[in-house]
Amino acid sequence: MAEGTLYGLGVGPGDPELVTLKAVRIAQACPVLAYPAPEQGDSLARRIMAPHLAHGKVEIAIRMPLSADRYPANAVYDRAAADLATHLNAGRDVAVLCLGDPFFYGSFMYLFARLAGKHRTLVVPGVTSLSAAASGLGMPLAARNDVLTVIPAILSDNEIAARLQSADAAAIVKLGRHFARMRDLIGRLGLTGKARYIEHASLPGERSRSLDEVDPATVPYFSLILIHRRGHAWQ
Amino acid sequence: MAEGTLYGLGVGPGDPELVTLKAVRIAQACPVLAYPAPEQGDSLARRIMAPHLAHGKVEIAIRMPLSADRYPANAVYDRAAADLATHLNAGRDVAVLCLGDPFFYGSFMYLFARLAGKHRTLVVPGVTSLSAAASGLGMPLAARNDVLTVIPAILSDNEIAARLQSADAAAIVKLGRHFARMRDLIGRLGLTGKARYIEHASLPGERSRSLDEVDPATVPYFSLILIHRRGHAWQ
Repeated sequence: MAEGTLYGLGVGPGDPELVTLKAVRIAQACPVLAYPAPEQGDSLARRIMAPHLAHGKVEIAIRMPLSADRYPANAVYDRAAADLATHLNAGRDVAVLCLGDPFFYGSFMYLFARLAGKHRTLVVPGVTSLSAAASGLGMPLAARNDVLTVIPAILSDNEIAARLQSADAAAIVKLGRHFARMRDLIGRLGLTGKARYIEHASLPGERSRSLDEVDPATVPYFSLILIHRRGHAWQ
Repeated sequence: MAEGTLYGLGVGPGDPELVTLKAVRIAQACPVLAYPAPEQGDSLARRIMAPHLAHGKVEIAIRMPLSADRYPANAVYDRAAADLATHLNAGRDVAVLCLGDPFFYGSFMYLFARLAGKHRTLVVPGVTSLSAAASGLGMPLAARNDVLTVIPAILSDNEIAARLQSADAAAIVKLGRHFARMRDLIGRLGLTGKARYIEHASLPGERSRSLDEVDPATVPYFSLILIHRRGHAWQ
């Protein structure tokens, strides 16, 4: 019996219309569907794809405790990889639904690292939250010869300042509890007027604003700041 | 009479299945379709969307001379913007098809800069060539706290070296005639073993390889090099 194929399917940033035809076709064809989910409650990746799915599939929610540090997370991925391998070995194709693009800061990488060496694996790229943010803001990411740098907000102020000073365009991602520190850092660098904030891009809760209008206590993890150091570089 | 809306539609990196449901719906609904095209011959953006289109639309090919420097290019965009404005003013919605994502190094920005202040404009994000390249290479773009830097190959060796030394992950884009210089620079930085080349990602002509297997004379503009400075950072 032929082995099953593992698919990492990018389902895009949130709007169910921002999935690709390819992700829809493969999700519909696979008998086994896996997706990341919180410890309790719904999976956003599953919800994005829901309008396109029929019943009758085996579904595997990969539930991650919110407070997971690296070692419990490793145990969750070890267990999920073993579950998926059982289906693959039995000849069943498995689709893993991934928010945004599987290879752009996606948790699919942890399954990829565990399974791609032993099983046929294909990744279907998706629209990133970064592209959705730029569209929502009406603010190009990069033009012409711009250098674009994507910076996780968890890094230190010094590291981030060095990167902002050498980038034409930058995105600071995974803001959450780091927002106030980032706002202050951007202010010290004199870039506040060239920065815009957006949360939940492409979802019904999408909101964009300038940095001084944001209440730091309400900033979700899925939010980012775009900065054009040279102003409107695309003009 | 209501004014028309200008849509910038990302059609993805080349595979006609990597368009989003939203881009298909809007392209089908708009009576006027515009797209970039070479001076003579077919438009790749038009070809990607072709399986989803009916006849009977007004079509505007925005033809750019291959050797265009900035000023003839400005004249082409001025003329195209005037054509599109005529349709918008007459109440007709206009869809501009854009390779990849309209706001990620896309030529849509030149129309956006000319029209967005005067006409209702919406951008639909698409899958970038960068995401398609990572998928094709089986090589994540960025994981966890990685800084990802996107660098146009036209920049100087010194500028590129500085960026490569401070990035965890980097993509050098728009290679074309710059390939041999980039290969040599990456070699001098000791990063050859951590770099992979891909051209025409997601298209039938997709080919990936290590840098020393590439013939510089054959490298197309739509090609890139991905580098993970820390090796397999996702593991």
